[in-house]
Amino acid sequence: MLFFMKVDKVYMTDIAKQLITSDKLCKQAYEEVITSIRSSVWPKGSNIFTINNSEKNVNGVVPLKENCYIMLEETYNWFREKPLDVLKYEKKKGGPIDVYKEFRDGDTVRRVGLEFETGNISSAHRSMQKLLLGLNRKELDMAIILMPVFELAYYLTDRVTNYEELEPYFENAEGKAFVFIGFNADAFDSSVEIIPKGKDGMSKRSIKKWIQKKD
Amino acid sequence: MLFFMKVDKVYMTDIAKQLITSDKLCKQAYEEVITSIRSSVWPKGSNIFTINNSEKNVNGVVPLKENCYIMLEETYNWFREKPLDVLKYEKKKGGPIDVYKEFRDGDTVRRVGLEFETGNISSAHRSMQKLLLGLNRKELDMAIILMPVFELAYYLTDRVTNYEELEPYFENAEGKAFVFIGFNADAFDSSVEIIPKGKDGMSKRSIKKWIQKKD
Repeated sequence: MLFFMKVDKVYMTDIAKQLITSDKLCKQAYEEVITSIRSSVWPKGSNIFTINNSEKNVNGVVPLKENCYIMLEETYNWFREKPLDVLKYEKKKGGPIDVYKEFRDGDTVRRVGLEFETGNISSAHRSMQKLLLGLNRKELDMAIILMPVFELAYYLTDRVTNYEELEPYFENAEGKAFVFIGFNADAFDSSVEIIPKGKDGMSKRSIKKWIQKKD
Repeated sequence: MLFFMKVDKVYMTDIAKQLITSDKLCKQAYEEVITSIRSSVWPKGSNIFTINNSEKNVNGVVPLKENCYIMLEETYNWFREKPLDVLKYEKKKGGPIDVYKEFRDGDTVRRVGLEFETGNISSAHRSMQKLLLGLNRKELDMAIILMPVFELAYYLTDRVTNYEELEPYFENAEGKAFVFIGFNADAFDSSVEIIPKGKDGMSKRSIKKWIQKKD
């Protein structure tokens, strides 16, 4: 298998680093996410990921997220839209976690939540707070946020957040198991096909929702 | 002196509660903020705060913030636009804290940062993270966020955040000295003058910036 979206920058809190090094399930979770983000190629059928850099903000970002999620759901059996109990039952507000999986090994379970940021910087702050709440309440054992790095985001939809923009606040997650991943294109080329914006050109599919999960 | 904007809801983390109860300077900071937010009246010349409730989103919110800031700056000598060293010199990105004051008593100093939220919920998350970063880095000893409660925000500019919307995440600030204050109108009346949006009708004034502060 070939992987070509680059993982350019990673920040792990001390606890996350320790877990990913020494805990088999957390290591597996991290590797599944890395493999899924790296699996994107562009244009379709290529064997590397090349972004059109003819103009600022020219490409869409949703298809990147979609590729990553398809692999997480279909290859690795992650689920979409996992509500946190604290938000759903206690606070009665706030949306679910984007992607979620429970890793099991005998009696050990590790619950990992992931958000792939395609909104603006403020919305990235909200995702971070939501995941921190899940960690504080011990509904999650590890949290991950995926974002394009600045160099790539420059050619994606206007105001899409980037790794460097949220970076000053990563340390607010110290004391919790949190990983921030910044991905980048493999190559830049002004003649390559532009990534469509929104859901244009994406095949329809049913996402694998947590709520439909059969135990 | 009469005060009429109501302080409807308050959340203090345990540490903030302790400081406001037992530390003279933090108590003073809290009281100055409460007095300043309560000092708003509407319409001008009235002696209570009445909001026009003829229609959703009909009133502006900026004049409320302005009233509060004028009192903080002119009566209590708070400063505007205090940059955090961690953002300015180390991370080289991110804006300053809205309002800031250093309280002194002999050798004791307490540095308090405040943000009055007039943006949407995502922007409130960003303010909270910025203040948490200041607390984590020990550039602030206490942080405060002011927001309208839902009942009032309903009649203010569309998508202005409200206390209840950020409330699920207040507990992420536990372990730090953080106070969240939700204010409300004293009365609702569909025939009272509408609060203008933006800066319309507000007198021009020079704000008291931290950067111009003379020691």
